[in-house]
Amino acid sequence: MAGYKIIFLCTLLSAVGPFCDGLNNGLALTPPMGWLAWERFRCNVDCKNDPHNCIGEVLFLEMAEKMASGGFRDAGYEYIILDDCWMNMTRDSNGFLIADPERFPSGIPFLSDYIHSVGLKFGIYEDIGTKTCGGYPGIEGYEKQDMQTFADWGVDYVKLDGCYKDPNTFPQSYPQVGAYMNQTGRPMVYSCSWPAYISGGNNTVPWQDIADSCNLWRNYDDIQDSYASLTEIVAWFAQEQDLLIPVAGPGNWNDPDMLLVGDFGLSYDQQKTQMAIWSILAAPLIMSTDLRTLEPQYRRILLNRNVIAVNQDKLGIQGRQIITSKDKGVEVWTRPITPTAKSGNTIVYSYAVAIWNKRDDGTPYPFSNPISQYGLTSKSGYFLRDLYTNQDYGFFLPTDLLTVKVNPSGVIFFKATPVIADR
Amino acid sequence: MAGYKIIFLCTLLSAVGPFCDGLNNGLALTPPMGWLAWERFRCNVDCKNDPHNCIGEVLFLEMAEKMASGGFRDAGYEYIILDDCWMNMTRDSNGFLIADPERFPSGIPFLSDYIHSVGLKFGIYEDIGTKTCGGYPGIEGYEKQDMQTFADWGVDYVKLDGCYKDPNTFPQSYPQVGAYMNQTGRPMVYSCSWPAYISGGNNTVPWQDIADSCNLWRNYDDIQDSYASLTEIVAWFAQEQDLLIPVAGPGNWNDPDMLLVGDFGLSYDQQKTQMAIWSILAAPLIMSTDLRTLEPQYRRILLNRNVIAVNQDKLGIQGRQIITSKDKGVEVWTRPITPTAKSGNTIVYSYAVAIWNKRDDGTPYPFSNPISQYGLTSKSGYFLRDLYTNQDYGFFLPTDLLTVKVNPSGVIFFKATPVIADR
Repeated sequence: MAGYKIIFLCTLLSAVGPFCDGLNNGLALTPPMGWLAWERFRCNVDCKNDPHNCIGEVLFLEMAEKMASGGFRDAGYEYIILDDCWMNMTRDSNGFLIADPERFPSGIPFLSDYIHSVGLKFGIYEDIGTKTCGGYPGIEGYEKQDMQTFADWGVDYVKLDGCYKDPNTFPQSYPQVGAYMNQTGRPMVYSCSWPAYISGGNNTVPWQDIADSCNLWRNYDDIQDSYASLTEIVAWFAQEQDLLIPVAGPGNWNDPDMLLVGDFGLSYDQQKTQMAIWSILAAPLIMSTDLRTLEPQYRRILLNRNVIAVNQDKLGIQGRQIITSKDKGVEVWTRPITPTAKSGNTIVYSYAVAIWNKRDDGTPYPFSNPISQYGLTSKSGYFLRDLYTNQDYGFFLPTDLLTVKVNPSGVIFFKATPVIADR
Repeated sequence: MAGYKIIFLCTLLSAVGPFCDGLNNGLALTPPMGWLAWERFRCNVDCKNDPHNCIGEVLFLEMAEKMASGGFRDAGYEYIILDDCWMNMTRDSNGFLIADPERFPSGIPFLSDYIHSVGLKFGIYEDIGTKTCGGYPGIEGYEKQDMQTFADWGVDYVKLDGCYKDPNTFPQSYPQVGAYMNQTGRPMVYSCSWPAYISGGNNTVPWQDIADSCNLWRNYDDIQDSYASLTEIVAWFAQEQDLLIPVAGPGNWNDPDMLLVGDFGLSYDQQKTQMAIWSILAAPLIMSTDLRTLEPQYRRILLNRNVIAVNQDKLGIQGRQIITSKDKGVEVWTRPITPTAKSGNTIVYSYAVAIWNKRDDGTPYPFSNPISQYGLTSKSGYFLRDLYTNQDYGFFLPTDLLTVKVNPSGVIFFKATPVIADR
């Protein structure tokens, strides 16, 4: 809930001094949802041979069109975001950033206008160092000018990477850029890669400072198109959860990186797993798939209203791993969500519960526990409903046994609503 | 080609002595194709709560029906094979094996008859030791009796596992059982797990002895429902290929274990990868999926006639890895197949070529080589045709560059037919 407090304080104090030069934008009250080019399209600049898949305006115009017409916008996916490799290799003679003129012949303002015209918002990528990771111009030395350029272009979201910069400067440099963003007067979501460059090994990460400065932050390694990458990232989130959960809340989100749904490396069940765990984690839901060729069964995962509702729950409490896979190979993750009720002075939450079978021994695994094991301890009991199948499991007291069969590498994902809640 | 020679010798010598007590059955002239319960259904004996998925006659009757009606039989899938856990925990009072009477109330002969009645063949599982891996009665001390039982039951295929037996006895015990099988007079394909119990570490495996005694043999660890398991097995096959290729041929097949196509752990592209590599390896095509609920896109992979034709190529030459992934993350596998031509005294083969992108960096990887790099060196050139898409690539000389884009964890799989071959 840190985000709420900061915004509130900033509203009070914004007239009286520089106290809130950092994040003070009132944005991202739920985890951002959108589409980002990187995981699926990388730094493909070969527009001559691959005009529809290279990093150029055709790709982004087509994705924006599909986001709007394919039901994604209406489901809450809102930002179309450029990643690395959109720029010209040098700034113009006045030091301004420009897009690659061959790949973006109509220019960035045109792209931004088109994206806005179909009811979406526009995100852009830059890097806090001298160069982007791909070797394009970074913002170092041009911080204020570039943020003003982005504001002039109608940018709504800035992903700021951390290559070619000493991470020891991040505690100053990332907040400074955020202040420049605020000074433009244009609301822009601020996605920082700050922790991703320091979170390995035994480093201490200043999570609260990061949350004070950024709307979302890439905590850990880039996700790759494989179940191995997905499981490694989630394992890290489990390991660090006691540090990560307190800094998440409306306006501030831990970011385990993009969804792989619809891509090449995950099975159908694994795709449902990622969507469920990302919803438990209150993670940004940033797709990176080819919306033009997306198969219907994967589209249904991305558009699942029940699962999105968990992700976007207005309480903004990040969930946690409550049972590890060490014993039976099955992990359980839960997240407190609305609706809530009061029992005396205690808040009784609803919960989203994901039961993830990390075993690979081929057959659905029967997993059985009294629901109290999942933190469902309200004595009046709960109604349980499957979020993927819409199946009602019925009414359960805390001591009642719930038996589910979980597909290998898949999840069972359900919502438990306390009977005493105002449903 | 070892299998042909042995069979020929045995035909000559069978009247004059015990020389051919081992394999002499004339079976499996191409890699066996069928369906085996284990990978997908394991040792689920809970028929009370899970009557359609437990190891019981319902499961096998339903699979046989789907094999026949769903196009699998007509595509070449022929054997329906029981795995572990079909037996009663004890033999009958005369020492005969019996099926679990609750799970197989109609008995094994009934099941065998039904399978035969729909035009399929019937396979069974046992273990060469005192117990099966799941703890059911093994054949030790009953070898001859049990093989006669199987023959009496109309068994066409025996998978003989290696739990609860000293592997040092395998060079005697596996051939001995094969001799008993032959003595029944009923042709039964002999699948040995002999090498799987000794092929780890630095052990020397007597591959030729195994090939002399068995139609197919499980070389390495059990496959699990994951891309990690698949890639580990294939890496082992690449590492050992110079030992494995010489012993494969009509009647004798290395067995990297079951297909995971249609199951939970592989993506669509990964499923196509397995089917392609298994075809290159001249591996048995043994499905282990729920044919009752198989999605159409996965069914199409299993029924792909082009890919099956590579697997079943009558030359029976096992293919090999010719480019490792160490350099660019892309592996290339090729297999010599029909049609062939003669150029002077040299045989010019057609080839199946699989280009496997083992990278996980999200976007199709452009891979480019003159086709001579794939062993396609016939100076008159080749016609290239994609085996999954049926797309004609056209005519290529050995020096001509072929550029393909390969999906992450997927393959491009094509056939190259020499121009001079009698197509």
